[in-house]
Formats: sequence, C-alpha cells, structure tokens
Amino acid sequence: MEEGMLDVANPSHYFEGVEKLLEIWFEERPEQNGDLRNITRPAWEELLRHVKCEIISFKKNDLIDAFLLSESSMFVSKRRWILKTCGTTTPLRCLEQLLDLAKQQGYTVITDVFYSRKNFTRPEVQISPHKGFYEEVTYLDSIFPEGRSYCLGSINLECWYLYTFSKPVVVKALPDLLLAAEQEDHLNTDPDQTIEILMQNLDKDVMLAFNKDRFATGAESTQHSGIDQILPDMVIDDFLFDPCGYSMNGINEQGEYMTIHITPEEKFSYVSFESNVALNNYTRLINQVIRTFKPGKFIVTIFANKSSLAYDTMKELEIEYSTLSNWKRTDMQCCSFPTYNLLFAQYSRSVEDWA
Amino acid sequence: MEEGMLDVANPSHYFEGVEKLLEIWFEERPEQNGDLRNITRPAWEELLRHVKCEIISFKKNDLIDAFLLSESSMFVSKRRWILKTCGTTTPLRCLEQLLDLAKQQGYTVITDVFYSRKNFTRPEVQISPHKGFYEEVTYLDSIFPEGRSYCLGSINLECWYLYTFSKPVVVKALPDLLLAAEQEDHLNTDPDQTIEILMQNLDKDVMLAFNKDRFATGAESTQHSGIDQILPDMVIDDFLFDPCGYSMNGINEQGEYMTIHITPEEKFSYVSFESNVALNNYTRLINQVIRTFKPGKFIVTIFANKSSLAYDTMKELEIEYSTLSNWKRTDMQCCSFPTYNLLFAQYSRSVEDWA
Repeated sequence: MEEGMLDVANPSHYFEGVEKLLEIWFEERPEQNGDLRNITRPAWEELLRHVKCEIISFKKNDLIDAFLLSESSMFVSKRRWILKTCGTTTPLRCLEQLLDLAKQQGYTVITDVFYSRKNFTRPEVQISPHKGFYEEVTYLDSIFPEGRSYCLGSINLECWYLYTFSKPVVVKALPDLLLAAEQEDHLNTDPDQTIEILMQNLDKDVMLAFNKDRFATGAESTQHSGIDQILPDMVIDDFLFDPCGYSMNGINEQGEYMTIHITPEEKFSYVSFESNVALNNYTRLINQVIRTFKPGKFIVTIFANKSSLAYDTMKELEIEYSTLSNWKRTDMQCCSFPTYNLLFAQYSRSVEDWA
Repeated sequence: MEEGMLDVANPSHYFEGVEKLLEIWFEERPEQNGDLRNITRPAWEELLRHVKCEIISFKKNDLIDAFLLSESSMFVSKRRWILKTCGTTTPLRCLEQLLDLAKQQGYTVITDVFYSRKNFTRPEVQISPHKGFYEEVTYLDSIFPEGRSYCLGSINLECWYLYTFSKPVVVKALPDLLLAAEQEDHLNTDPDQTIEILMQNLDKDVMLAFNKDRFATGAESTQHSGIDQILPDMVIDDFLFDPCGYSMNGINEQGEYMTIHITPEEKFSYVSFESNVALNNYTRLINQVIRTFKPGKFIVTIFANKSSLAYDTMKELEIEYSTLSNWKRTDMQCCSFPTYNLLFAQYSRSVEDWA
C-alpha cells in the first residue's frame, strides 16, 4: 500500500489485496490459566518479522486485543489467535513460533485451525510457501496431522480455499457415535460465527476516500465513507496509508471484532470486511457493506458452529439473498463440517465483471 | 479388467476403477427432428476408438439405447448422450467427433455439459488429457466457452471433480432478471436427477461373485449378488469379465437407466452405481446399494434440477443420513447451480478407512 496511486507513473505497480487468514483456537485446561494476551509485544514483533509485516497500532478491551499491522490485522483473545495479512506476506512461516509462544502460556492442545483465502489475482508474485494452495497445504500438513483442504467456488474462475482441522470431541461408548458427538458438542461449545465479504471492482468515487490527497487521517476516511455506521458499537482503530490504502479494526464490549482493509487503486481495487458479530440474520449487514463500498463483484462466506445464532438462519440467507434483483449469483455452496457449517456465495453485477 | 486376479502372480497389476463421466444435452429445435439414436453403430465404434474402448453388448427400448463397453457404458437418448469409462480411457478425446455426429443429426446447440470423476487412486498412470483435473479443464475450456470447474470434498484426501456448463435461459426484459430465469426454467425443463454411489474397500466375500472362477456368466453374478433387486423394473444387460470384473446396464419403460461397474480385486476394489431414476427420497436406495456391496467407504452425489422430485427432499436426505450410526460422515457439501442443485457426501466406517 506504500506505492504510488498514479498508475501512469508506475504502470507495473501492483498490490495484492487478497488476504491470507489464519485462525487458531487452543484448548483450555482447568489446571492451567493460560492467556495468549500475556504474550509480550517484543515477542509479537519478533514473530511478525517472519511474516514480513509490523505493528502500527494497538487497541484493547477486557476481552480482546486488536493489532493493526502494516499488512492487515491480528486479534488476540484468551485462547484464540487470528492473523490476517495481504500483499506478499508469509503468515504460515510464523506458525511454529506461534505454537511455541502458546505453549509457554500453557496451551499445548489445538481445538481448531482455519487457514483460508480467496484465489490471488496475481499468484505468480507470491513467495513460498504461498505460491499455490497445494504448497500451502503441504506446509500446513507438516504441522497439523489431520487437516482437510477445500476449494469453494469455481476453481478455474474465482474461488476460496480453506484448510481446516478440528479436534474431535471425545465421545462416550454409545451405539450412535455421531449423535453423541453432536449433542456433546452442542452443550460444550461457545457460539462462534465469522462472516467475510470480499469485494472487487469497487466504485471509483467510493475509493477516493482512501487516498492521502483526499483526507489526512484514517478517522476522516472512516467517517466520510460511513464505515463507522456498519457496526456502530465497535470502538475503531483506523489508519490511512501514504499515498493510499486503509485499514481498520473494531472491537466491542462483547469481545466481538470487525476488520476492514482497502486497496483502492482502480486496476486492482479490493476491499475485505470480516466480523464475528453474532447476528440472527446477516442479510442486513451484507446489504449495508455492499451499499457502503459498491463493488462490482463479491464473495460472502459465513462460518457458524452449531451453537451459533446464525446456524438456523443460514438457509434463510441462502433463499433471501438469491432474489436480489441487481445481483447475479454465480455460485453458492454449503459445507457441513463436524462442528461448523459454512456458506459460500459469489455475486456479480454482470457477466463482464466475472474473471 | 483383463489382467489376472492373482496379485501374487503379478504384484504390479493395477486397474483404475474410478470412471470419467461425460454427459451432454442438446437443444431441441422445432424445425429439426434430430435424434442421437440415429447415429450408426459404425460411427459409434469409430468414436469409441478415440476413447480406447469398444462395444461388447447393446440393449434398447422406445426411449433409450444402452451400450455396455469394454471399459463401462454409454447411454444414448433423443437429445442426451452419456459416456462413462474407467481404466486409462480418454473420453474427452472423442468430444469433437461427438459434436460432429450430433450436428449431423441437427443438434447445433448444447444446453448442458457435465464432466465429473472422483480423484484417481493412481493418477500417475493416466494418459493426457487426463493426467490431472487442471489438464482436463484446460482441454474442456478449449471446446466449451463458459464452463465452470469445481472440487467437492477434501482436495488433499478424497474428492470429486466437476466441470459443468449450462446454457443460460433466455430471459424477458424484466427488472428481476434472476427470478424470471428461475420461473421460466421451472416451467420448461424436464425433471432430471442423477445419483451416483462410488464405493471402495469392498467386502471380500461380496467381491467373489464377480470372478469367472466363481460364476460363468454375468447373469449369475447379477442374481447371486442381488443386483437385480436394487431397481427391479430395470431390464438388465450384464457382463462378467475374464478373469474378473463386472458391468451392467439397466433400462426401464420410463427411459430411466442404471449402471454398475465392479473392479473386485482386493487391493484396489471399486464399485460404482449410477441411476437417473426419479425418486422422492434416495435414502432407501442408498441403503440397499450399501447393503448389497458392503463398502468400507463411499461417496454419494445427487444432482437434481428444480423440476425434479428429488429437489425438495435433498435437505431431508442431508439430515436423515447423518444419523446412521455405523457411518462416519467425513464431508458434506451442497452446491446451488443456476438450474441444478448438487449434494455431495462422503462416508467411512472408520478413520483408518480414510485416505
């Protein structure tokens, strides 16, 4: 996000907005009182050097620490760590160090791993182990023994890759093994849901708000664009890059977060929205995000575990959103994992917006 | 299927049971009275030489022609062509010739293309353009301009690839384009559904019935195994290979078909079941197929278009089957295509059966 906005000055200028998203949950043990938030700032800075990015801002509340990075964001709570980075960063390269730091906090067992990303617009500029999903999976498989990898959407057009592992629930010796696991899981698991909206071909005028020649600070961009209206109870930490580019984190008293990252350059514009806010129905939120940024095409992914409010309404979303007259839905898939459901959908304004 | 059953005699003996399935639908035009069944036997034989297989038996009724091939099956009706071949056959190589033959029958417009297969157990023995899904998609993209490709299931374990194209329905100039398309499609389309059950690690005793040292004819294998009880109204054409292996086609008066292909060798046993029979609910059929063949793991795929009886009950299947106590469901995905829904699920008896 540091290079020039004037493509004419540097026609080969390119920035990959598409992020690599890594989320890991650790298992609480009664006897250990671990907390990932006790990992020190210098330790995080050292870890992020492996990723090729750095901390530019920090906000916290009682439940969650939120870091704004030079290339996106990191969220740390008691037992969950999230790292989201774009450009040519290498987040997988910090994994072993992260597991060490977690172990020092008493966390030796992982309950869930999620690594996901949209297909890169220019995969050829990426650095190992991110040169392709196959390479990423091979690397992850060397660390996590039972991961499964998926590709949602059209492999030959636009798609979304997911690598995931969830520690199986220990089941009693009942004949109906599967049912016991689901019942037990439902009782014990905190509700969890994540929605991502990944947008491209954004409205030029909307993108102007994320340039330093238009505004001086992130706060001005946030207010002008209406980003502060999307989830108004979030306390925002924002940053406007020079000469263009924008990042924000939001956190609220329930320990929920949101994060938006914007690559405004017209040739490769990209905006990502992510939040774990617990809602019955995400349609209104999706509509507001789309109205705020006016993309030409976008992907929505919604993860919800069986305790989540969103779980029962994912099918409603499936139906409701498909009748939006301005959008052509080019793909929709649902996946049923042992403890989560995942909904994936792609929308485009017209065939020309596609690939 | 020609090589020896005695693995001890030829330890390197291997046969890939996993099939490549190609299905093409052509558009009827009122002015033309085309019929793919008018394509001559010599023309089919010539086409199948490109595929590296040949016709070994033939049965027909008023609605459908069914060919048993040396490496699986071909079904021809008025406007639909299905070719399913296994081993190291090259079905994509006959596509251009097939389109020529169809054109000679007056068919110049394709309404639907489906190419699908499970991942190969030994992809390295395949011949171009089947050396990998990427290669297959590239080849298909050179013939069909708007195909989309998918991978269902776990890419790094067991998965199912699909390449598909459906001609968009011509819509009137209404504001709600998507709704108009769905309404029009619902009124005009013949109901269509296809179920496939792909099984591996089959019961040794069950597989004995498909050896020439046990029975002399396909008919004996069919009766002994209970294959004739699965869809009793089907008229069966069966064949027992030497020294082992089995294929059958079934057709009924409604123009429905079924086809089963069996690779019984213990080291790489494989059985596929496919049918387009129209049922409200496929659970009973799936149960019967599983009881007949006793696999260690299997994949189920169900395609149903919006006119199909199966459409509304696919969600019931999703729920019902998940409570089967003997099976661990390792993956389930649903995809929503413009005119079809697709349900995919994988089941395994135990973790050790997996990958």
